Amino acid sequence: MSDFPVPETRVLAVASHVVYGYVGNTMATFVMQSLGCEVAALNTVQFSNHLGYGQAKGTRATSQEITDLYQGLKDSYLDDFQMMLSGYLPGAASVEAVGAIARDLKYKATMKPGSFFWVLDPVMGDNGKLYVAEDVVPAYKDLVRDADLILPNQFEAETLSGVKIVDMDTLKQAITMLHEQYRIPHIMITSIAFPTPGATPSLSVVGSTFTSDAKPRIFGIKIPAIDCFFSGTGDMFAALMVARFREAVTSAPGLMETAAWVSDDSVQSIELPLAKATEKVLASMHEVLSNTKIKRDEELEKYNKQVGGRDALSDEKKLRLVKSKAAEVRLVRNLGALKHPNVKFRAETV
Amino acid sequence: MSDFPVPETRVLAVASHVVYGYVGNTMATFVMQSLGCEVAALNTVQFSNHLGYGQAKGTRATSQEITDLYQGLKDSYLDDFQMMLSGYLPGAASVEAVGAIARDLKYKATMKPGSFFWVLDPVMGDNGKLYVAEDVVPAYKDLVRDADLILPNQFEAETLSGVKIVDMDTLKQAITMLHEQYRIPHIMITSIAFPTPGATPSLSVVGSTFTSDAKPRIFGIKIPAIDCFFSGTGDMFAALMVARFREAVTSAPGLMETAAWVSDDSVQSIELPLAKATEKVLASMHEVLSNTKIKRDEELEKYNKQVGGRDALSDEKKLRLVKSKAAEVRLVRNLGALKHPNVKFRAETV
Repeated sequence: MSDFPVPETRVLAVASHVVYGYVGNTMATFVMQSLGCEVAALNTVQFSNHLGYGQAKGTRATSQEITDLYQGLKDSYLDDFQMMLSGYLPGAASVEAVGAIARDLKYKATMKPGSFFWVLDPVMGDNGKLYVAEDVVPAYKDLVRDADLILPNQFEAETLSGVKIVDMDTLKQAITMLHEQYRIPHIMITSIAFPTPGATPSLSVVGSTFTSDAKPRIFGIKIPAIDCFFSGTGDMFAALMVARFREAVTSAPGLMETAAWVSDDSVQSIELPLAKATEKVLASMHEVLSNTKIKRDEELEKYNKQVGGRDALSDEKKLRLVKSKAAEVRLVRNLGALKHPNVKFRAETV
Repeated sequence: MSDFPVPETRVLAVASHVVYGYVGNTMATFVMQSLGCEVAALNTVQFSNHLGYGQAKGTRATSQEITDLYQGLKDSYLDDFQMMLSGYLPGAASVEAVGAIARDLKYKATMKPGSFFWVLDPVMGDNGKLYVAEDVVPAYKDLVRDADLILPNQFEAETLSGVKIVDMDTLKQAITMLHEQYRIPHIMITSIAFPTPGATPSLSVVGSTFTSDAKPRIFGIKIPAIDCFFSGTGDMFAALMVARFREAVTSAPGLMETAAWVSDDSVQSIELPLAKATEKVLASMHEVLSNTKIKRDEELEKYNKQVGGRDALSDEKKLRLVKSKAAEVRLVRNLGALKHPNVKFRAETV
């Protein structure tokens, strides 16, 4: 019964649902539950599968439906959330609807600093390309001012800050800008890749918790890249972060009762609860994804043998679908890696 | 990694989703995942909360949406399910849509007996009352002919069999009728209560796997009743049964490759895999619900103290809502009880 890193934590999770596989709430719900959180999953879409397959069937909730579901919770006194995690939203109106929900929860918590914490994943695009409508960008820019922790990838950090990230200096500029301009207490950029010719491919995540005068305290963690594209890893990161950040904050005396869980100015970057949490998050992720890669390769080998007689390449579409399926994150059978991460990658000062 | 009772099992779960609390797929998904199943949750409704609160907001999927989501899975080769669990469906058209899905999966498995198994919870009503539209009843009567295991409560068993269950004889008649008339291999009646004046309240579940000539092999398990109404217990029973029945069948040599997992005629009722599975299911449930009852009483006491100054009864509606919330099954923090049941109640021949 006490095998959980966090005290009972009620989380409102607003993101997409897929029937098959693990992205959005389908990923985040199990991850947070496995770490002992009570998760209220408000699904913004229901699709048969994630869009990496290139095709899917399903429906999107309207912003009114999102608002109504939250109203339903309020009507029955079911809105006593301590944390909120918001992910993919199907359009600017939904972004605004979710902003209204978060602000309502934040407002209720005004008299009790630290009693509500909002983790916002500003899902807009990746690798230099937007995959949401243009009007979603200003909607998010309006939203992030109220978030406690945002989890942009490199492209999203660039989009929000207006700073093109090409090296360490511009990375620092972007984070400084986000802290100062939007007053976001905590920032995690979930994937930074600078091209280094000849080096072993690696990914970095870079985070910061601002000081009392909104200056950054930046740390980074380098992890070996796994040579495969997985969907839902951003959602896994966010969900693990919800539980692990709360765990780290719980163990810092008085911090849970501090507004936005911002550590005292005396705390150095690599000692931040955000840094400690990120170490555990990345340890779990690396183990789960390494195990997934092994299973994926086995599955593809099996498929290749099976179609060996025929020309496998003749059915390119099927091959793409089979590859997408094989790369679905192996989540439920990796419970141990979620619960008991073996920390190997440590935060370093940037 | 091997801390799971079943080999990797892909389950299609078709039922309702609630944002807050645990009923339908919200209950079943976590239960099956915690036992190591890969669950594809196709949500037939999304409501803010279960209907025991007396109010809720949300939307129902149309039967076309259900059909489309399944088509989406097929389009991407994501329909390789080994089991299916179907629960609450929002109307006769949805019952038919889900029947078509199950038959499609069953048809694909024709050449490999035992490779697909359908657990059907014919949700129609309880305590003598229908809570679905009249036309859902014939739709279910048509459906159960293709199910491998059905999980009616006493009222639903009466509705399907046409036999009013008032004592052991009529109970046997009802089960015999369901085996013979619909050719359902396995039947579990999930709650039977005969009034026995003066006795300690108890509930029985009664099950049977038919023989090669469709005769019943009936067993029963008596469990002490917990004096509280919980929602979602039928869904918890069904989800635990999916994993535990598969576990029991896996350990009986050759049974997994036998059509509908029907044991040889030499196997006596209390030795049936269904009986063994039910013992574990009820052990988990009793522990989870006992723990829930303790927490519920604590929460209500806290509420009563809080409103102590005012007249608590003056706000009857709020009290009802608070009671519903307090009685939500404590699921995620009871992972141990789900995974490692301590069997106390044994199957007996009826």
